[in-house]
Amino acid sequence: MLLETLELVGIVAFAASGALVGVSKRFDVFGVCVVGAFTGVGGGIVRDLLLGIHPPTSLTSWPLLGTALATSVVVFFLHSALGRLRREILVLDALGMGLFASTGAAIALDAGAGALASALIGATAAIGGGILRDVLVNEVPLLLHRDLYAIPALLGAAFVVAGTSAGLADNTCLVIGTVVASGLRLIAMWRHWSLPGPRRPRE
Amino acid sequence: MLLETLELVGIVAFAASGALVGVSKRFDVFGVCVVGAFTGVGGGIVRDLLLGIHPPTSLTSWPLLGTALATSVVVFFLHSALGRLRREILVLDALGMGLFASTGAAIALDAGAGALASALIGATAAIGGGILRDVLVNEVPLLLHRDLYAIPALLGAAFVVAGTSAGLADNTCLVIGTVVASGLRLIAMWRHWSLPGPRRPRE
Amino acid sequence: MLLETLELVGIVAFAASGALVGVSKRFDVFGVCVVGAFTGVGGGIVRDLLLGIHPPTSLTSWPLLGTALATSVVVFFLHSALGRLRREILVLDALGMGLFASTGAAIALDAGAGALASALIGATAAIGGGILRDVLVNEVPLLLHRDLYAIPALLGAAFVVAGTSAGLADNTCLVIGTVVASGLRLIAMWRHWSLPGPRRPRE
Repeated sequence: MLLETLELVGIVAFAASGALVGVSKRFDVFGVCVVGAFTGVGGGIVRDLLLGIHPPTSLTSWPLLGTALATSVVVFFLHSALGRLRREILVLDALGMGLFASTGAAIALDAGAGALASALIGATAAIGGGILRDVLVNEVPLLLHRDLYAIPALLGAAFVVAGTSAGLADNTCLVIGTVVASGLRLIAMWRHWSLPGPRRPRE
Repeated sequence: MLLETLELVGIVAFAASGALVGVSKRFDVFGVCVVGAFTGVGGGIVRDLLLGIHPPTSLTSWPLLGTALATSVVVFFLHSALGRLRREILVLDALGMGLFASTGAAIALDAGAGALASALIGATAAIGGGILRDVLVNEVPLLLHRDLYAIPALLGAAFVVAGTSAGLADNTCLVIGTVVASGLRLIAMWRHWSLPGPRRPRE
Repeated sequence: MLLETLELVGIVAFAASGALVGVSKRFDVFGVCVVGAFTGVGGGIVRDLLLGIHPPTSLTSWPLLGTALATSVVVFFLHSALGRLRREILVLDALGMGLFASTGAAIALDAGAGALASALIGATAAIGGGILRDVLVNEVPLLLHRDLYAIPALLGAAFVVAGTSAGLADNTCLVIGTVVASGLRLIAMWRHWSLPGPRRPRE
């Protein structure tokens, strides 16, 4: 129950981030909906393909894609009330990332995947939607830029896997996994935590 | 029988659109064949991955990939006779889109997918090849630009699903679905039907 | 045994090529690891998705992803000792391509795929990692440029399929397939073998 709810919230967050990117590229309402929908359900579809869930849940259940589309339409019409977009995209992206990391890991465990695979599939679900969004609009994916991204996703997913095998309640794992992943990402952005770039080669 | 024929025609149309894009990017004959092949069979491969058909039909059956490659070679050598390319790419793309939307929905129904999943998988097959083509050549996908694209694909696929569940003959559904999807797309391009862009944010 | 070893060597080669591309784009250590990991295991994941192996081996087995990450970290810290990068990326890419073509075809045969599908899936595994790498960093994939690329991959994979059905020992097939694919690619680059570009259209 909490799992389904958090997955829907994650779809709202990612779809909104995708729709805002579409708006910032000045796509029409349909282009915005396509980017929003791909971003909202893309990570879940990649997760289900990796787990062998056919057809992916996002394509068999009305609420998931419907939520992504409704969010995109709302963002399209309300975006000017939102003012500057860059910060909102990043915050929504961080929230969606954490939610997909923890729900993705839990769904992978449910589907019988091992501990390593579940953590990695959770992280893939978390970063998949954002990568699809950025590849679609022809930008270098956010997670390749500075500021930590994939490490918080992996830690959140790993927490769900570790907590579950330690016997914690599923809902507790989901909440803590999400807080860990999204929280770390937000702190990393806020404090401009970043890792060293390559030394400049001799020229 | 009609299903297989229409799928081949769709592959020809999409492969030709991909090959023409490759020609316009001045790739060599092999680059043109790679883009043409990906565009021609890419949507079908994505469809089969979503349905859990392993390995995808396009990789197990000579005629499908062979058709895509042969089309690409022909386009490569004849393209200068075709003159200006932009219009041809768009028309072939519209035809391939409609054919893949209706055949994709029919194949999904055959594979036991539900109504919603079949319509969405048909639409995905229809837009998948074109998205792969545009991502490969590093362009923002056509369907994010103005003029309706995904809505005709979805309507064509939905028609096949609805018609089949209403008891219409399979072939009738396929033909009407294709005409609906490709026709709407062509009319939308011809009349420059487009949806509103985002209001300009206060600056 | 040889199969697993060659797959690991292929992962090292592709991960190093991906990491060098990341370094040349001046990503931080984590961006470099993400590109390296995707490039190193991406082709294998695509191969497993096409074969219906869920979850993909690269996500269930520590050594594969671990090797890709370790390679990326080493490249990140040592790259300046490597001097100019362009040539190294191309050579490593050619080596990884040949290794993935032959191991991919062998794994597909093991999984029960037919001859055509096995050759094509081997070739897909061989080109998949490099395509993912180039799409991620927003470049037109290498294999669409001049100099032969996909033909050597296909020939190497086809050799493994033909040799296996002719009764050659598996290890012999793997070695010859790799030498054929990587060797042809290296010779093509060295001799600037390339196929004709499109005739310039009348303007």
